[in-house]
Amino acid sequence: MNEEKYTKTVPMNQISIKDTFWSCYRELARTKIIPYQWEALNDRVPGAEPSHCINNFKIAAGLKEGKFEGFVFQDSDLAKWIEAAAFSLVWYPESTLEQTVDEAIDLIVSAQQEDGYLDTYYIINGLEDRWTNVTNNHEMYCAGHMLEAAVAYYHATGKRKLLDATIRFVDHIDQVFGPEEGKKKGYPGHEVLEMALMKLYEITKEEKHRKLAKYFIDQRGQSPLYFDEEAKANNTDPHWKDSYFKLQYYQAGLPVREQDKAEGHAVRAVYLYSGMADVVRETGDDGLYQSCQRIWDNMVHKRMYITGSIGSSSYGESFTFDYDLPNDTVYGETCASIGLVFFAHRMLQISPKSEYADVMEKALYNGIISGISLDGTKFFYVNPLEVLPEACEKDQLRRHVKPERQKWFGCACCPPNLARTVTSLSNYIYTKNEDTLFLHLYIGNESKLELNGIETTINMTSNYPWDGDISVEVSPVEAMEGSLAFRIPGWCRKYTVWKNDVPIVPDENILKDGYLYIQGKWEAGDLIKLHFEMPVQVISSNPRVRSNIGKVAVMRGPIVYCLEQEDNGAQLQQIRLPKDSQFTCHYEKDLLGGIVKLSSNGMILDNNGWEDNTLYRFYTEDTFTAKELTWIPYYAWANRTCGEMSVWIRTE
Amino acid sequence: MNEEKYTKTVPMNQISIKDTFWSCYRELARTKIIPYQWEALNDRVPGAEPSHCINNFKIAAGLKEGKFEGFVFQDSDLAKWIEAAAFSLVWYPESTLEQTVDEAIDLIVSAQQEDGYLDTYYIINGLEDRWTNVTNNHEMYCAGHMLEAAVAYYHATGKRKLLDATIRFVDHIDQVFGPEEGKKKGYPGHEVLEMALMKLYEITKEEKHRKLAKYFIDQRGQSPLYFDEEAKANNTDPHWKDSYFKLQYYQAGLPVREQDKAEGHAVRAVYLYSGMADVVRETGDDGLYQSCQRIWDNMVHKRMYITGSIGSSSYGESFTFDYDLPNDTVYGETCASIGLVFFAHRMLQISPKSEYADVMEKALYNGIISGISLDGTKFFYVNPLEVLPEACEKDQLRRHVKPERQKWFGCACCPPNLARTVTSLSNYIYTKNEDTLFLHLYIGNESKLELNGIETTINMTSNYPWDGDISVEVSPVEAMEGSLAFRIPGWCRKYTVWKNDVPIVPDENILKDGYLYIQGKWEAGDLIKLHFEMPVQVISSNPRVRSNIGKVAVMRGPIVYCLEQEDNGAQLQQIRLPKDSQFTCHYEKDLLGGIVKLSSNGMILDNNGWEDNTLYRFYTEDTFTAKELTWIPYYAWANRTCGEMSVWIRTE
Repeated sequence: MNEEKYTKTVPMNQISIKDTFWSCYRELARTKIIPYQWEALNDRVPGAEPSHCINNFKIAAGLKEGKFEGFVFQDSDLAKWIEAAAFSLVWYPESTLEQTVDEAIDLIVSAQQEDGYLDTYYIINGLEDRWTNVTNNHEMYCAGHMLEAAVAYYHATGKRKLLDATIRFVDHIDQVFGPEEGKKKGYPGHEVLEMALMKLYEITKEEKHRKLAKYFIDQRGQSPLYFDEEAKANNTDPHWKDSYFKLQYYQAGLPVREQDKAEGHAVRAVYLYSGMADVVRETGDDGLYQSCQRIWDNMVHKRMYITGSIGSSSYGESFTFDYDLPNDTVYGETCASIGLVFFAHRMLQISPKSEYADVMEKALYNGIISGISLDGTKFFYVNPLEVLPEACEKDQLRRHVKPERQKWFGCACCPPNLARTVTSLSNYIYTKNEDTLFLHLYIGNESKLELNGIETTINMTSNYPWDGDISVEVSPVEAMEGSLAFRIPGWCRKYTVWKNDVPIVPDENILKDGYLYIQGKWEAGDLIKLHFEMPVQVISSNPRVRSNIGKVAVMRGPIVYCLEQEDNGAQLQQIRLPKDSQFTCHYEKDLLGGIVKLSSNGMILDNNGWEDNTLYRFYTEDTFTAKELTWIPYYAWANRTCGEMSVWIRTE
Repeated sequence: MNEEKYTKTVPMNQISIKDTFWSCYRELARTKIIPYQWEALNDRVPGAEPSHCINNFKIAAGLKEGKFEGFVFQDSDLAKWIEAAAFSLVWYPESTLEQTVDEAIDLIVSAQQEDGYLDTYYIINGLEDRWTNVTNNHEMYCAGHMLEAAVAYYHATGKRKLLDATIRFVDHIDQVFGPEEGKKKGYPGHEVLEMALMKLYEITKEEKHRKLAKYFIDQRGQSPLYFDEEAKANNTDPHWKDSYFKLQYYQAGLPVREQDKAEGHAVRAVYLYSGMADVVRETGDDGLYQSCQRIWDNMVHKRMYITGSIGSSSYGESFTFDYDLPNDTVYGETCASIGLVFFAHRMLQISPKSEYADVMEKALYNGIISGISLDGTKFFYVNPLEVLPEACEKDQLRRHVKPERQKWFGCACCPPNLARTVTSLSNYIYTKNEDTLFLHLYIGNESKLELNGIETTINMTSNYPWDGDISVEVSPVEAMEGSLAFRIPGWCRKYTVWKNDVPIVPDENILKDGYLYIQGKWEAGDLIKLHFEMPVQVISSNPRVRSNIGKVAVMRGPIVYCLEQEDNGAQLQQIRLPKDSQFTCHYEKDLLGGIVKLSSNGMILDNNGWEDNTLYRFYTEDTFTAKELTWIPYYAWANRTCGEMSVWIRTE
């Protein structure tokens, strides 16, 4: 198949984000999360559990004595930190940070073994046991993150030290695993190496790198099931044998080409699907693409929250079944939504359909940034759509749901994942092929890229997501023939587009798969203006979703709104949004970091004579009193006082 | 205080139940459950996990070699079986059964130690460790059940062998535990011994028995916390230390007199509260009574399902917090509702208020018998009010909820508890004091009892719960002055009462605490007729109950109804009961063992253009189509095909 039909991302160093909304998150990552994590990795945060991560590397490198401590996947924390730092260095060069990264890389490389092996857990505890528990011991997961870090740092600085080291590690893995006789028939217990290998392949173009990624994907779930065999060899029971999903927890219960539902541990799942899409993009494998599409359809159309959160259950941090989207017991891990963006972004590169970018936008503006407090110091792993603080304390089924963001302790997956996502945001704005630039996200930026071989500056300005007016100035260094394809967001029902103040009629000739293609000759200063009408929209969910029956959610543009106790009082279930609800929007620059707050008419259940100590009584018709409701963006909840919150509100 | 102010139960052997509704359950217990359990205790049920129970006793008695097997509380299974058999023998003498019980008792007694100790787990595993883990190892729980069995068998047959043996065991316990210096300051980890001791006290009138019960109750939760001390001594962590409730799992986190909420493991809780009420009744302890009342109010008015189920959470089989009554993740153990009846029955003896009998009736006709299939062969431990079979399989939070009753395997608590409850049902119909007979439950029966010293036959006939017409013929052997106090059920809003066909005006002079007192001279053949109007009633719950907001339940008389998929199709959440709902009732003798089936108008959500693969869309007003709904009694659900079920239904 023809690889050229796919679009590619625009290299990060060609894009300079200038966006009020996102710059704040990027600055938080750069100035708070990345420095904080470096201290954490070095066990220098007072009062925090030690990470042991740097220490493990020192011991593995023979620089000090000691035993391995922390999670078996502790190495990956350093890798994620390097990746985030690398992304940050692209748009904000800092020699001190770069020097710190270089020193960290020196340490990592000094721990590497002769044969390329590089995982401190086994280097410290005994190499004889390496690769004997790939199901659970995360060696390939750590390798994957280290590889992603190496690729990012290479792109950011051109420095190859970590890249070369991880290539040697990959070569080692390639000698241990593979279809050839004598090699182990295993694959990662926690996926990520697949997509990391494909990133490496984009640099090396070495067939063996692509082949190994494809092998891991194709071998997954083949009989006899490797993870079962491994458990047998280790005389252990497979960890999830008593669960409903069994090896599908690892997406390894059957071959990926036979899978058609998003199943098991949600983060692992979307990391796998992302790797699958990478292989499709680089090989044109149609069977694998169909599998990606089936899984995408299942996940997005039957198993995704309106906030872009995925993974309904805390048990196994996993998907459950179609239309099972409880709002209060949800898991909805921040990392899973990040992985969903990875997957969406890859599907978008294969086929520029706005559905993928819509989901990417939905997750980014809602279920991902809900994971971080507005001051950048506290985090949600779990992103509920309905919270009653008392339940989080007193009901075990909801103890994983926190009513307040937590300091960064223990298993450090979500905060660094958030950091690397917002620092690399420019990845997701555009994709392009030879003559078409796709504009997926309306994040203000200035970019220099090539279209049809001609260097072109794109200057996008907007006040997104608070209004839908976007200007895109296109300045090729010389007249350029090409297309700009603008995503018409799924939430938008009415829009106008002008080129140099001349309205463009969006007919079927220029509208395709949710993109408006503006083709022609472009000259310096050409100006596209987009006006996406951004009224408040009331949304309902498929009536098969039991938890949302009779309820609606409120959105404006890509932003999902919620009610908080702080604004609306307790007992949010007693509130109704009437059919004739009218909304007013008001930008409040001093509220929650600057948001458009919504006000609407609403109704609140009257007491109707209910005493606290009456539990049941004969039905009498409920009466309601008018009440003004105040809505804030979902992502900004839990930044004031601890209280109830709800996204889905009863309607009449 | 004056003990005489309290009422007492009428001895079981004075009451002969003749009731269509209940006779069937009693016959199931007598002809199926009791014989089946005897086989199970002897490991003779093909295909079932062995119980090991009888075998453990044989080993403990030195009759064979072997090791202890089964749960640490396995002895209690035999005790519960003997108790159920004893109750059955009261109303259905069977010499073969009695002989089998006698042999079982011979075996039990032959395992008893010189010093009175009697628990096969420690007799087999080593007596040196006995009483070192009363928190979790159930020695006093087994002792309690054995004592209850002994008391029941003594009442049934007059035979003292087991009674004397358990008195010796109690005397041993009394020497180990108590306030005196040198004695352990412990109390049962799983309560039941408290109420068992009070039953013993009623026979022996020995102060030491009452005193020991009171000690266990008063010592519970005193600082230093015995269970914490025990864990320390054993070098273990308290089992629930990471839970919200900690030692309140055992109702042992603070002194019982300071407790005012139903907390922790629900079965343990209601067994404790029952023992507390027993002590109140026999000592007039007002402080303890206030605690009973506070806990009752909290449990019944804030933490009880409409079916009389209690215990919202599967985690710890426990209570959670006020108004937290999820219908789909509920635990609602059958045994907990049985314990609720114990507690209600005791509160009723202290103070004849219809509220207690209402709860007793609610649990008996709903959340208890829902635990057994109509053919008596399958059981629910968990009694959900809303079921989606797919969720029971695929969502871990609901895996404890079964969509079909299970065969009796493993932990055998609920089936024998059901057996002993229905075989002893006559306990709950009446209480009396010197000159007043209280009629709490309208279960057909013929009784011979004394009122004001005069032997009186009471002949109650009814077709309850299917209609509200009850006849009570009162035949004293000679003219008798006294009162009959009839409960006016809480569900009843309109009723008529006649004495010898003369209507009685229920004014405030004869109405008190929900009872209608008919006082006067009674002569043979005096006939009281009661007509409780029994329309279908639509019930709503306190709007603080989130899971029931906007929903209603349907009752008729004491019976809670539900919708099943079998009658109403799938996706029950899409059904609404309109405000103007009209019901028709029809007795169907061949349906589900004979029930009054309800039909009503209803509405079902139209598809409104929803595609299976659309999850969210802009809100448009829902439309509905009329649909006839078919309602069956909740207790009878899951006796046909496996499907959805719901008690709480959306209303307009």
